[in-house]
Amino acid sequence: MTHDEARERAAAILADAGIELTEAERAAIEVADFGLGRLEEVGLQLVVYVNTERVCAKELVLFPGQECPEHRHPPVGDDPGKEETFRCRAGTVHLHVEGHGEVTLGPGDQFTIPPDTLHWFRAGDEGAIVSEFSTRSRDALDVFTDPRIVR
Amino acid sequence: MTHDEARERAAAILADAGIELTEAERAAIEVADFGLGRLEEVGLQLVVYVNTERVCAKELVLFPGQECPEHRHPPVGDDPGKEETFRCRAGTVHLHVEGHGEVTLGPGDQFTIPPDTLHWFRAGDEGAIVSEFSTRSRDALDVFTDPRIVR
Repeated sequence: MTHDEARERAAAILADAGIELTEAERAAIEVADFGLGRLEEVGLQLVVYVNTERVCAKELVLFPGQECPEHRHPPVGDDPGKEETFRCRAGTVHLHVEGHGEVTLGPGDQFTIPPDTLHWFRAGDEGAIVSEFSTRSRDALDVFTDPRIVR
Repeated sequence: MTHDEARERAAAILADAGIELTEAERAAIEVADFGLGRLEEVGLQLVVYVNTERVCAKELVLFPGQECPEHRHPPVGDDPGKEETFRCRAGTVHLHVEGHGEVTLGPGDQFTIPPDTLHWFRAGDEGAIVSEFSTRSRDALDVFTDPRIVR
């Protein structure tokens, strides 16, 4: 699957779920393969609604079985690191959080991940749509456990 | 319309839009009439997903023509005041922002309101669902222009 194909597929999944995007947002859907080149297994599709100094909101789309690999959001200056709430909108996502083990989120379920805490997640067989509500995103500063990963 | 009726109506509107809530969230839908007792004209229904020290996310439901009256989110200690992004999910909302005039938001449109900035909004004829992404909510500290209002 190319990144363009992933972008189109994610847009279709969001449209089917009744989540409206502007034309510009559809074109700007971010496809992350974490530099591993195995997008269908390890990857993520993202719509960034807003990312100010203080607040960020995104929609994450995961294809069936797709995984976002283990990482944490480290402190940056006075900022203790990104705090994230994941709210499942459709499908199922299995979230693994340092100190909490596995949390399975279905539609309407959510979990808040404290700053600087290792976590990874994988969609169930139907894939998943997850809303992320967080402090500022600085994706380039994320620390991944797998040293081969480039964000 | 009683507050219970408003709560049920808001839950039905969210369900129709494919927005899944847990049973506990449905029961906890907040109905605000701002102490004016004219809920159908001046009021708001809210689902608070998360409200930590740093991040807040809500779903706002507005019935047709329903208005949230003019207010601002003042600074609190070191905090410059609540910053809010409104993203329209369904229907239409007419948002009035100090220094910007009127902004009309349809599905997929959004607007970020800086801290301590006067704003008010009213739903169009079909009502509206609006996602709010913000810094911490401290609703009791909101400053309303109409001195009769109690939040």
